[in-house]
Amino acid sequence: MTSGGSQTLADIGEFGLIDAVASAFAPTPAVLIGSGDDAASLATSGPVLVSTDLLIERRHFRRDWSDPVDVGHRASAASLADIAAMGGTATGLVVGFGGPPDLPVAWVLELAEGMAEEVAKVGATVVGGDVSSTDQVILAVTAFGHAETEPVTRGGARPGQVVAIAGRVGWAAAGLAVLGRGFRSPRAVVEAYRRPDVPYAAGPQAAAAGASAMIDVSDGLLADLGHIAAASGVAIDVESGALEIAEPLEAVGSAVGVEPVRFCLTGGEDHALAATFDADAALPDGWRAIGRVAEGSGVTVDGEEYEGPAGHTHFG
Amino acid sequence: MTSGGSQTLADIGEFGLIDAVASAFAPTPAVLIGSGDDAASLATSGPVLVSTDLLIERRHFRRDWSDPVDVGHRASAASLADIAAMGGTATGLVVGFGGPPDLPVAWVLELAEGMAEEVAKVGATVVGGDVSSTDQVILAVTAFGHAETEPVTRGGARPGQVVAIAGRVGWAAAGLAVLGRGFRSPRAVVEAYRRPDVPYAAGPQAAAAGASAMIDVSDGLLADLGHIAAASGVAIDVESGALEIAEPLEAVGSAVGVEPVRFCLTGGEDHALAATFDADAALPDGWRAIGRVAEGSGVTVDGEEYEGPAGHTHFG
Repeated sequence: MTSGGSQTLADIGEFGLIDAVASAFAPTPAVLIGSGDDAASLATSGPVLVSTDLLIERRHFRRDWSDPVDVGHRASAASLADIAAMGGTATGLVVGFGGPPDLPVAWVLELAEGMAEEVAKVGATVVGGDVSSTDQVILAVTAFGHAETEPVTRGGARPGQVVAIAGRVGWAAAGLAVLGRGFRSPRAVVEAYRRPDVPYAAGPQAAAAGASAMIDVSDGLLADLGHIAAASGVAIDVESGALEIAEPLEAVGSAVGVEPVRFCLTGGEDHALAATFDADAALPDGWRAIGRVAEGSGVTVDGEEYEGPAGHTHFG
Repeated sequence: MTSGGSQTLADIGEFGLIDAVASAFAPTPAVLIGSGDDAASLATSGPVLVSTDLLIERRHFRRDWSDPVDVGHRASAASLADIAAMGGTATGLVVGFGGPPDLPVAWVLELAEGMAEEVAKVGATVVGGDVSSTDQVILAVTAFGHAETEPVTRGGARPGQVVAIAGRVGWAAAGLAVLGRGFRSPRAVVEAYRRPDVPYAAGPQAAAAGASAMIDVSDGLLADLGHIAAASGVAIDVESGALEIAEPLEAVGSAVGVEPVRFCLTGGEDHALAATFDADAALPDGWRAIGRVAEGSGVTVDGEEYEGPAGHTHFG
């Protein structure tokens, strides 16, 4: 990854960029035809799970807040987490990349390095892509995978079940709050924002343990539980005392004047998984109960409506 | 498709937009889980073919040159053609869409209508997507499909074989030349630029007839035959007299001072298919021989090197 130097995308050109980046991605046994043809061919067993995500400069990341390796991790994590949230495991990604002509090639090579590291965590690889010049850096990441079980949708939650999560919530939001105010610490939350630590294996484990509904927390815990509630036709209540408020979140909360539990309830992009299980089910390792499913609609916190936005949205 | 009115993306919001657009896409039997969950699930038989394409405003289309229905057709066609060029048929698409907050919702609904019409030609549908606000309109289209035969790569052409094409070449380039000079006629080439007429069925038919290499002509005939030549380790010679120069191309050529055969040799985006076959093979309906494969490397026209760019590239 030392090639590139001070070259820009305009210097290297479309095909030069593709050649330079493609070598970052190691083939896996599932890749029957890799990049460099009209389409890739991936071995499958059973139905293919597909999810696509956009990561847009200044909307989802800033080049002065995240280095390209981090952006590569985050862009891959968002799509890999979607496959995990169906109870599946990703096998391949395709990536559409756009950047301005004066973008350094080295930036893109480091981005590819981050993507390669993140997809390797689940045994997947990047099998193809497309590049174009654009005004702002854009990444369109599509992941494919398969599930050993029936895929777990958002629509299966039933009254009386418990709501549980795996992974961290609130950390990325706390990191973003810090960066937005021009700071770089506490380092743990800034790192969490830059590079989410996604509990990929928890998805298939939850599916095997009988999870009835599942989602990845990308918009915010309340917003995403709201998607489960709406799709399942149920109400969900979160017990705020069950959420671990880690020390760095306390520190950021008091520094910026925000109740730290708000980070956990409304912060997205940690890509925790949230799922519902029968009340008497043994939760798999790494999962902890944080609430209850009931008859009705909507999401409450400790039995009350929660004030303020439940998560972020676009075009707002 | 009458909803939307004068609303903008900022008015309707991310989830409003997704809801409005999702109803444009009819489910098919292959869609086991459609849009609205973390991932879609598609039935497959055998390996899955995957291809992704970016379509970027001002780079690949202009909103004053193409209406949104046309952009929808073109964006889908580019990815569907890639699957056809492997000898496959697309079953589903996922779409990443970005647009500025002041973009009318009606524009996006008409875009979706064009996509729905184009994917219906091959029996596919759109199974999911993501939306974001962006400075320029961007479309990231990923198509999945399967092939009844072994997928046909770019790498199988052998000396002595014939090169054949199915579909039109040069029409979109002639249309672009006209639009670029501020004109709107001849209408046939302008329409060809706005909405390519892709010979989707010719891909699987070529594969069944023993095509040894295949590609879709998106960059330009010489450029794309160059990809086959490079991947196969062969030389290709195109016989210019075998290319049909249709009347509208003659008209545009003389109006803009370009040899009309140049449109056919270097113009992309008609998404014709080009393939190689054994010299004694009967070409399937719709395919016509235009050249020969030989030992060596590179692409020539009538035995000579062709002057000028073989196709277009990005970041240039």
